[in-house]
Amino acid sequence: MNFLEKLDKAVEKNNSLVCVGLDPDLDKLPGQFKTVDDGFYEFCKAIVDATHDLVCAYKPNPAFFEALGSTGIVNLEKICSYIHENYPEIPIIYDCKRGDIGNTNKAYAVSAFEHLQVDAVTLHPYFGKSSLQPFLDYKDKGMIIMIKSSNEGSGELQDLSVGDLRLFEHVSKQAKDNWNDNGNIVLMVGATYPAELESVRKIAGEEMRILVPGVGTQGGASEMLKAGLNSQGKGLIINSSRSILYASSDEDFAQAARTETEKLKTQINQFR
Amino acid sequence: MNFLEKLDKAVEKNNSLVCVGLDPDLDKLPGQFKTVDDGFYEFCKAIVDATHDLVCAYKPNPAFFEALGSTGIVNLEKICSYIHENYPEIPIIYDCKRGDIGNTNKAYAVSAFEHLQVDAVTLHPYFGKSSLQPFLDYKDKGMIIMIKSSNEGSGELQDLSVGDLRLFEHVSKQAKDNWNDNGNIVLMVGATYPAELESVRKIAGEEMRILVPGVGTQGGASEMLKAGLNSQGKGLIINSSRSILYASSDEDFAQAARTETEKLKTQINQFR
Repeated sequence: MNFLEKLDKAVEKNNSLVCVGLDPDLDKLPGQFKTVDDGFYEFCKAIVDATHDLVCAYKPNPAFFEALGSTGIVNLEKICSYIHENYPEIPIIYDCKRGDIGNTNKAYAVSAFEHLQVDAVTLHPYFGKSSLQPFLDYKDKGMIIMIKSSNEGSGELQDLSVGDLRLFEHVSKQAKDNWNDNGNIVLMVGATYPAELESVRKIAGEEMRILVPGVGTQGGASEMLKAGLNSQGKGLIINSSRSILYASSDEDFAQAARTETEKLKTQINQFR
Repeated sequence: MNFLEKLDKAVEKNNSLVCVGLDPDLDKLPGQFKTVDDGFYEFCKAIVDATHDLVCAYKPNPAFFEALGSTGIVNLEKICSYIHENYPEIPIIYDCKRGDIGNTNKAYAVSAFEHLQVDAVTLHPYFGKSSLQPFLDYKDKGMIIMIKSSNEGSGELQDLSVGDLRLFEHVSKQAKDNWNDNGNIVLMVGATYPAELESVRKIAGEEMRILVPGVGTQGGASEMLKAGLNSQGKGLIINSSRSILYASSDEDFAQAARTETEKLKTQINQFR
């Protein structure tokens, strides 16, 4: 079963387009997880246990694990294994935003797909298609191309005019028309830019999935849903990280995360 | 002492613009390093010991370490510590090519500067200046912006026309004119594109350093030197990885690496 089939099954089973980002931030974690070696793992495990029937994917971001060095990576490995073993129906999106020359990307692909055994990765497009080939060769995995990032100021370069299109639109078009030989490309557009998302949906057509980070902490949902859902009320993977993970910093953090996830799921489904 | 001062001292001391990339590739390592837990560290240590008086910097690329997961990261941590302790005069450039939203970049910056304590990082520019602020705030560290990558096909997006400039030229101009408040920005242009390097040198002016990867395995040196050196015969950090690391796969690999490094150093100095 490839990434998109696995994703569609999880969407169906849990009736949810919500992806929960696993970004364990030392500054924001409940106190009991800050001081132990496997605190990041234990925190993420509690979040996963509390939300697994409400989501279509999990999205760990290695930056937060790397901040602790090899100890952090052990935690990342453990949470990926835990999800595989206990919730094998939920795909893991590794939000690594890697992008280098082919020889180096081959090593990154081994790290993601052979070592962590994740189902999809996020990628920087700017080295061009040929550099991405070592990733693209994994036909059953998802390749999520960074198109328009959610941060304020993302327009500085991404909105530059390239002929009749803006740069992020040009990259969307390339990814759709020329990079998608294996049908496993997904685009990534920040929830904070609904007008730009609408434009990418037009370029992407009905079938392509778009990963939309930045809902919750970074922005609202309704405009984004109107702009990004396809005519079947599908086609989006909607990620929230901080507003779910840190809904409470007390002992009820996992229950609070569940409540937030459920709220977002419901809010989205009312639009579909 | 900040990164550029440390770099200039190392250039002076060793009379060298050569940077050796530490890319331990399981497929290419001499046999004795393939099967042990600290093989990547031991291999890199032997390379460093054999070349430390011939280089101006080392450039570990995390991809190759990440391919082994947390075990690989332990090796990365050990080689960074080893260089700090034994050759504190040689700066470490962490060739991680990270780039994400500010909140995530903060974690990546902690990983690089607090945890590994490297002197400089390579960065993707496409999320814009504001996203890079958590890196830029480390005023004493070097921020090496990916401008034009060395791979065949890098022109697919990087050479797009943006007004009167190509995209990589536009990014160079932004980085020089608007991102360099702390005077710690370095640009990165592949040795395989001498004409493009010449154009970036014109935009960058005399003072800015340019990191040039891809010499050796990927391409020749003389055109690149003509295009990239400033009028004092300086301003470049010239990286070679594979042609030095894998000059021999026999027991003499470290001596062969030294010979290759010396050859490249001499070839470059004849041009300066």
